[in-house]
Amino acid sequence: MSNTNSFQPVALEHASRLINHGPTVLITSSDGTRRNVMAAAWSMPVEFTPPRIAVVIDKHTFTRELIAASGTFAICLPGSALVDLTHAVGSTSGRTMDKFEHFAIGTETSSVLKLPVLSSGCSAWLECRLIPERHSEDAYDTCFAEVAGAAADARIFRNGHWLFDDSNAALQTIHHLGGGNFICAGSVVRASAP
Amino acid sequence: MSNTNSFQPVALEHASRLINHGPTVLITSSDGTRRNVMAAAWSMPVEFTPPRIAVVIDKHTFTRELIAASGTFAICLPGSALVDLTHAVGSTSGRTMDKFEHFAIGTETSSVLKLPVLSSGCSAWLECRLIPERHSEDAYDTCFAEVAGAAADARIFRNGHWLFDDSNAALQTIHHLGGGNFICAGSVVRASAP
Repeated sequence: MSNTNSFQPVALEHASRLINHGPTVLITSSDGTRRNVMAAAWSMPVEFTPPRIAVVIDKHTFTRELIAASGTFAICLPGSALVDLTHAVGSTSGRTMDKFEHFAIGTETSSVLKLPVLSSGCSAWLECRLIPERHSEDAYDTCFAEVAGAAADARIFRNGHWLFDDSNAALQTIHHLGGGNFICAGSVVRASAP
Repeated sequence: MSNTNSFQPVALEHASRLINHGPTVLITSSDGTRRNVMAAAWSMPVEFTPPRIAVVIDKHTFTRELIAASGTFAICLPGSALVDLTHAVGSTSGRTMDKFEHFAIGTETSSVLKLPVLSSGCSAWLECRLIPERHSEDAYDTCFAEVAGAAADARIFRNGHWLFDDSNAALQTIHHLGGGNFICAGSVVRASAP
């Protein structure tokens, strides 16, 4: 299992690599009083520099309400050890309970935007500032954001590169196929030079 | 290797599952005279019904020019046997050559929008109609589109579900970590009920 003692800052120009391969993520948010965590399979980088991402967050979710209030959210990357938790926080609403308490999720405070992030089981996180885009948010539930800070567990991401190997399987990203089925990362293949 | 004899139509309400897990894709396009294929790591569904997706395509690419002309494009999902080809078409421009000819890529014509799609090595494709969104295209290179048709190789996607197993490794999706390094799908894990 991860703990954030192994976390190191990720240079902002490398932040896109954290979600380049399409992992399922956890979105954490807070309005200062209330907080929430939800799962999201639909996210992607949209720009390297400045580092920007897009993520689909249904407009009816409690998370959208918190993001509207704070203008910020974090994207945490659950490792394979958190498959059940990811599915659980993706299947429940934080409007009527504090999911961190309900599921006994330990948190700490992110360094730049002071957001709640998971203190165990994640390989990385990105701290994001919403770029208000009313039309995309309304029409496609698509939220654009700029990455203000990023950090990753040095056991699996170092010097701007993912290092997937047998030693860090529990931290490796998961990718939701639907219906609670996830693929875990398998072998890494290096393409031949074109 | 795949061949499209095994392809079956995918119901539009299941189309989002084809890219739900964040695979790297190939985007094919044509203006009726010229055609192109490029790699894209940054795509995601944005809506189940109607089936809509978002994909980042740099505004300076030849693909954007062809999409502007035709209003359509296809998203093909390369299997792990196409890692080198995916990297190659992602590292070259189709403005000065026909990449299909240059890389000896066999094509056929998609059934709904009559787009060129790969006839070998892919697990699935989605035929997409651009939803013109000038601001998102300009500011974030993000193109929204509606899925007008989808098909998948029944050896790996049947009845609306992915079936990753040892028998179809060459068709399994690839996920770009950056720099020509891809992860292939590993084991499938089913989350416990929350």
